[in-house]
Amino acid sequence: MFKHEKQLFHPVAIEKPNPQYAVLLQEQLGGGNGELKAAMQYMSQSFRIKDPKIKDLFMDIAAEELSHMEMVATTINLLNGHDVDYQTVDAGEIQTHVILGLNPGLINSSGYSWNADYVTVTGDLCADLLSNIASEQRAKVVYEYLYRQINDKKVKETIDFLLNREEAHNALFREAFNQVENTGSNKDFGVTEDSRLYFNMSSPSPSNAFGNTSANPPEFNN
Amino acid sequence: MFKHEKQLFHPVAIEKPNPQYAVLLQEQLGGGNGELKAAMQYMSQSFRIKDPKIKDLFMDIAAEELSHMEMVATTINLLNGHDVDYQTVDAGEIQTHVILGLNPGLINSSGYSWNADYVTVTGDLCADLLSNIASEQRAKVVYEYLYRQINDKKVKETIDFLLNREEAHNALFREAFNQVENTGSNKDFGVTEDSRLYFNMSSPSPSNAFGNTSANPPEFNN
Amino acid sequence: MFKHEKQLFHPVAIEKPNPQYAVLLQEQLGGGNGELKAAMQYMSQSFRIKDPKIKDLFMDIAAEELSHMEMVATTINLLNGHDVDYQTVDAGEIQTHVILGLNPGLINSSGYSWNADYVTVTGDLCADLLSNIASEQRAKVVYEYLYRQINDKKVKETIDFLLNREEAHNALFREAFNQVENTGSNKDFGVTEDSRLYFNMSSPSPSNAFGNTSANPPEFNN
Amino acid sequence: MFKHEKQLFHPVAIEKPNPQYAVLLQEQLGGGNGELKAAMQYMSQSFRIKDPKIKDLFMDIAAEELSHMEMVATTINLLNGHDVDYQTVDAGEIQTHVILGLNPGLINSSGYSWNADYVTVTGDLCADLLSNIASEQRAKVVYEYLYRQINDKKVKETIDFLLNREEAHNALFREAFNQVENTGSNKDFGVTEDSRLYFNMSSPSPSNAFGNTSANPPEFNN
Amino acid sequence: MFKHEKQLFHPVAIEKPNPQYAVLLQEQLGGGNGELKAAMQYMSQSFRIKDPKIKDLFMDIAAEELSHMEMVATTINLLNGHDVDYQTVDAGEIQTHVILGLNPGLINSSGYSWNADYVTVTGDLCADLLSNIASEQRAKVVYEYLYRQINDKKVKETIDFLLNREEAHNALFREAFNQVENTGSNKDFGVTEDSRLYFNMSSPSPSNAFGNTSANPPEFNN
Amino acid sequence: MFKHEKQLFHPVAIEKPNPQYAVLLQEQLGGGNGELKAAMQYMSQSFRIKDPKIKDLFMDIAAEELSHMEMVATTINLLNGHDVDYQTVDAGEIQTHVILGLNPGLINSSGYSWNADYVTVTGDLCADLLSNIASEQRAKVVYEYLYRQINDKKVKETIDFLLNREEAHNALFREAFNQVENTGSNKDFGVTEDSRLYFNMSSPSPSNAFGNTSANPPEFNN
Ligand SMILES: [Ca+2]
Ligand SMILES: [Ca+2]
Ligand SMILES: [Ca+2]
Ligand SMILES: [Ca+2]
Ligand SMILES: [Ca+2]
Ligand SMILES: [Ca+2]
Repeated sequence: MFKHEKQLFHPVAIEKPNPQYAVLLQEQLGGGNGELKAAMQYMSQSFRIKDPKIKDLFMDIAAEELSHMEMVATTINLLNGHDVDYQTVDAGEIQTHVILGLNPGLINSSGYSWNADYVTVTGDLCADLLSNIASEQRAKVVYEYLYRQINDKKVKETIDFLLNREEAHNALFREAFNQVENTGSNKDFGVTEDSRLYFNMSSPSPSNAFGNTSANPPEFNN
Repeated sequence: MFKHEKQLFHPVAIEKPNPQYAVLLQEQLGGGNGELKAAMQYMSQSFRIKDPKIKDLFMDIAAEELSHMEMVATTINLLNGHDVDYQTVDAGEIQTHVILGLNPGLINSSGYSWNADYVTVTGDLCADLLSNIASEQRAKVVYEYLYRQINDKKVKETIDFLLNREEAHNALFREAFNQVENTGSNKDFGVTEDSRLYFNMSSPSPSNAFGNTSANPPEFNN
Repeated sequence: MFKHEKQLFHPVAIEKPNPQYAVLLQEQLGGGNGELKAAMQYMSQSFRIKDPKIKDLFMDIAAEELSHMEMVATTINLLNGHDVDYQTVDAGEIQTHVILGLNPGLINSSGYSWNADYVTVTGDLCADLLSNIASEQRAKVVYEYLYRQINDKKVKETIDFLLNREEAHNALFREAFNQVENTGSNKDFGVTEDSRLYFNMSSPSPSNAFGNTSANPPEFNN
Repeated sequence: MFKHEKQLFHPVAIEKPNPQYAVLLQEQLGGGNGELKAAMQYMSQSFRIKDPKIKDLFMDIAAEELSHMEMVATTINLLNGHDVDYQTVDAGEIQTHVILGLNPGLINSSGYSWNADYVTVTGDLCADLLSNIASEQRAKVVYEYLYRQINDKKVKETIDFLLNREEAHNALFREAFNQVENTGSNKDFGVTEDSRLYFNMSSPSPSNAFGNTSANPPEFNN
Repeated sequence: MFKHEKQLFHPVAIEKPNPQYAVLLQEQLGGGNGELKAAMQYMSQSFRIKDPKIKDLFMDIAAEELSHMEMVATTINLLNGHDVDYQTVDAGEIQTHVILGLNPGLINSSGYSWNADYVTVTGDLCADLLSNIASEQRAKVVYEYLYRQINDKKVKETIDFLLNREEAHNALFREAFNQVENTGSNKDFGVTEDSRLYFNMSSPSPSNAFGNTSANPPEFNN
Repeated sequence: MFKHEKQLFHPVAIEKPNPQYAVLLQEQLGGGNGELKAAMQYMSQSFRIKDPKIKDLFMDIAAEELSHMEMVATTINLLNGHDVDYQTVDAGEIQTHVILGLNPGLINSSGYSWNADYVTVTGDLCADLLSNIASEQRAKVVYEYLYRQINDKKVKETIDFLLNREEAHNALFREAFNQVENTGSNKDFGVTEDSRLYFNMSSPSPSNAFGNTSANPPEFNN
C-alpha cells in the first residue's frame, strides 16, 4: 500500500519562473530516463521477486523515485509561472501552453508522451538488476546535461541532489546483483564455444582490440 | 513524498493459478482505464491545484489507486503460476510468456503498452474533475466485464472490492466538482447564441429528440 | 453514409499568414482534445447504440466534429502561407516544414501523432456520455488557451465559434445522460459499504474535507 | 462540411454472430491499411490541393472511405453478438471483451491502436497520389486475406464489394496522376548521373537483373 | 549476412556545426520517410520474396539505404558540434540536448520516435513494389524541403546526392513492377461492375472530372 | 557502408512449419529485447564514439545483430508455411495472417509495433555500455523463454546459437567498459554525502539488508 506525506522528500525551490527551464526538466518527469520510468520499472519488477530483502530494496527505491517525480513536477510547476504563453519557450514542446495549462505533464522535453516501452522487466533478477544499474547511470547522465543548461541556482541544487541519489541507487543495485550473481540467467553463462568467438563484421578494423575476455557471467567489483 | 507499507490496501487471493485470467486482469493494470492510468491522472493533476482540500483529495485518491495497482499486480502474479507456457493462454497477449517471465507488465490484455495518452490533464479544475468522474465510471465498467468472465471466487471478491472503490471515488470527485463549479472553464459557459443551437447533421432524424436544454455549465445533482 | 458539401460548416478567414499560429492550432486538429478525437469518439460509440434518438444525436455531433476538423485544417492551411521555412516557427513542431509541405497534418502542436488512445469507448452508454461531457469541457479549455495566444482577429472569431459549439455539445450530452441515467453502469451504483468509505492516504490532511456524499450514481442538474 | 445519411453506402449483413470474424475485420476498421487510414489520408491531403477537380476527387473518395468505415464497423458490431466472452476468440485481440463492451474500436486485429503514422501526407501531389495508389493496392490485399479466412457468405459479399471499390479508387488516383505528372516532385526527375546508377550491395548477385531503365519520372500506362 | 565497411557509401562534410540543421536532418534519419524506414521496409519485404532477382534487388537497395542512414547520421553528428545547448535550436526537438548528448537519435525533427508503423509490408509483391515507389517519391520530396532550408554548401551536396539516389531506386522498383505486373494482387483486377463506378460523395462537384478510366491493374509506362 | 552477403551468418532450418512458433519468434525480430533493437542501439551509439577500437567493436556487433535479425526472420518465414490461416495460431498476434501475408513483420509476439523507445542512447560511453550489457542479458533471457516453449529441434539449435552470441557480446561490452571506466559519467561518481544514504521508504523492512557499499562507480570484475 502506498501512502503520501505532504512534505517533499527533499525541499525544492526556484530563483524565478522560467518556462523554458520547465521544458528542459520535463525530460526527467516524462522522458525515457526520467523518474516515472524509474519508479515504474522497479515497482513492476518487485511484484515477482521472492527474496524479501531484495523485494524490499526494489520497493524502497521505487517509492523514492515516485518522490523524486513529485520533486521534479513541483519544480516544473513553479518554473511554469502564471500565464500560458508559448513565446516564453525557445525550443522544444509547447504542450504546456496549449493543452496542459501549465500543469506538469507526462511528456518529455519535445512533447512525446511517456510510455511503458521505456520500462524493462524480464522476471529474471540478474537481467533486471543490470537493467536498473544501466537505468540509474543514464538518469545521472540526463541530470548532468540539464545541470549544464539550467542557470537557476535553486534548480541546480535540486538537480545535484537527484543526480547523487541515482548514484546511490546504482550502488545499491550492484550490491544486490553481487548477492544473486550465481542465479537465473547468470547461471549457465558462457558454456558453449559460440559464446567465446569474436566476429569481425566491420572492416578495416583496428587489430587485437577485443575478444580476450572469456564469456564469464557479469560480476561487479564493488 | 510516497511511502510504501508492505500490507496490501486490501488482501487478495486466488483459488488457483490461471494464466488466462491473468491476461484479462492485465487490462486493469496496464490498460486505458486501469489503475496506473487513474493514479497518474490524479497525481499529475494535483501538482498544480492550489486549494489544499482539493489537492489533498486528489493525492488521497492517487495514493489509493497506486495501492489498487499493487493489488491487481499481486493477483496477476499469483494467477500466472510457475512456468512460462503460451499454451495456457487462449486469446490475447502472450508477452507474459515470451518477455515478461510471468512478471506483471505495464500492458493491456492484448499486449499494448501503457502510455500517457490515456491521461488527461488540462490545468482547469472543472475539466479535470469531469475527466476523473468519467474515468471512474469507465474503470467500473471494465471491472464489470472482468467480473463476468473470471470464474475464480477469490479474484471476483477483489474485483468487487475495487469496483466499489471506483464508485466511491466517482462520488468524491462529484462532491468536489460541486464546490468549484462556478470557476474556471465553467464560468463563461453558454453565453453566445452559438452555444445554444442544435444542428441536424444526420438524416433522416427522429424528430424533437434533443436541444431543449440551454447551455448551462455542468452541475451534478448529488 | 457520409457526404461532403464544399461549403464549410462556418466560414473561416485569417488576417495574414502566421505559421506559428498554425502550429498552435494543430493542437485542435491532431491533439488529444481536438476535433478528430471528438469525431472518432462519438462516431465509434454510435456504432453500438440501440436507442435511435441517442444514436442520432451521437452521429449528428460526430458529423459536426468532422466539419469542425475541416474548419481548423482550412485555417491552418491559410496560416501556413506559401514557403516551407522552419524559421517562421518559434517553438513547437516543425513537421509542417520538413515533411508535410505546409499541409495540415494529424499531429499536435509539438509534432506528436494523433492516435486512438485519445478515444474512449466502453459500450456502456452512461460511461460513454460522461466521457463525452468531459471531452467537450477539455476541448473548450484548449480553445481558451489558443484564444489567449493567437492575436489574429479572424482566427479568434473561428476559435470563439468552435468553443461555443463545444458548450452546446456538452449540454446535449448531459441532456442525453439524464435520459439514460438509470441504466447500465449507473444501475447498481453505491450498493456496498466499500463504495461509501473515504480513505485518508495522504498526510497531514485538512480535516472534514470530503466524504459526506453517499455514493449515488452521477446525475446532472440540467 | 460533412453530413451523415442513415442509409449505409451499401447494405451489410451477417449469417450469424462470430466474434472471431469480428476480430479479423477489425483490421480494416482500425488497422494500417484500413478504412479510417484511407479516409484520413485523402481528407488530409485534400486540405492543400488547389486544383478544384483533384480536390473534389480526393474528398469524394475520403467521404466514401468514411462510409466504408461505417459498413465495416456495422458488420463487426453484428458479428460481436450479445455477450462479452473472451472464449469466443481463438487468437488476436480481446479488447472487444474487456474494455470495448463489444463496441467496434479503433484497433487492429491484434489490439494495436490506430495512429496517424499510417497516414502519409507530403504537400506534393505526385507523391501523395503515388501513396494513395499504393494504399489502395494494400487495402485490396488485406481484403483478400480476410476473404479467404471468413466463412460467412454475407460478410464475404461485403468484403467483395469493398475490395472492388479499392480497385476503382486505385484507377481514379492513377487517372489523376497522369494529369499532373509533369508537376511538383516529378518535374526535375532523373537529371543527375547519380540517379542512374545501380549499386550492387548484395552478393553474390544474379547477373544483369536490373538497372536498364533510365530514371524517368513515374508515369502510368492507363 | 551484413558486413560493414568503414568507408562511407559517399563522403559527407559540413561547412560548420549548426545544431538546428542537425534537427532538420533528423527527419531523414528517424522520420516517416527517412532512411531507416526505407531500409527496414525493403529488408522486411525481401524475407519472403522467392524470385532471386527481385529478392536481390530489394536487399541491394536495403543495404544502400542502411548506408544512406549512416551518411545522414554522420552529417548530423558533425552538425551537432561539441556542447549540449538547447539555445542553438530555434524550433523543433531538443532531445539531442537533454537526453542524446549530441548523438544522432532515432527520432524525427520534432522529437517523435521512429516506429514500424511507417513500414508497409503485405507479402504481395505488386502491392509492396507500389508502396516502395511511393516511399521513394516521398523521400525525394522531404530531401527537397531540407535542401531549401539548409544553407550549408557541403550538406546540400549530400542532400542532392541522396535525393538522386531515391530517384534511381524509384526507377528500379518500377522496372521490377513491370516484370511482375500480371501476378498477385494485380491478377484479378477490375472484374466486377463495382470496381468501375464513380460515386459523387462531395457536392457541388466540377462536372465530368474523373471516372473515364476503366479499372485496369496498375502498369507503369517506363 | 553496409554490404549484404546472401549466405546467412549461421544456417537456419525448421523441422516443419508451425505458425504459432513463428508468433513466438516474432518477439526476437520486432520485440523490445530483439535483434532489431540490438542492431539499432549499437549502430546509433557508434555514430558519436571517437575511440576507433570501441567504435569498431560497436559496429562489429551491430552488423552481427542485423545478421541475427536476418536469421530470425528467415526462420519465421519458414515456420509461417504457405497459407494465411489465423486458426493455426493459438494465442498472440494474428497480423501475420491478416495484413502481413505470412511475411515476417516488425512486431512482437502480441502484434505491437517495434519502436525506437526500446533503443537507449546517451552520448556517454559508460552509460551506453552498461545499457548494452543489460540489453544482452535481457536478450539472452528472452531466448531462454523461447527455447523452453518451442519444440522444434532445428529452431532450438538456432535459438541456442543466438543465445550464446548474446553472451559473447555481453562479455565484449564488459571488456570495453573496463577500458573506459574512469571517463564520462563514471568520473565524478559518489562524491557527495547524498550519494551514500539509504532511505527506508517501505515498511516493515528486513533489517540491515543493504547500504554497506559506498557509492563507487560501476566496475566489472572480468
Ligand atoms: Ca531518481
Ligand atoms: Ca481504482
Ligand atoms: Ca468540436
Ligand atoms: Ca475503402
Ligand atoms: Ca535513401
Ligand atoms: Ca543478437
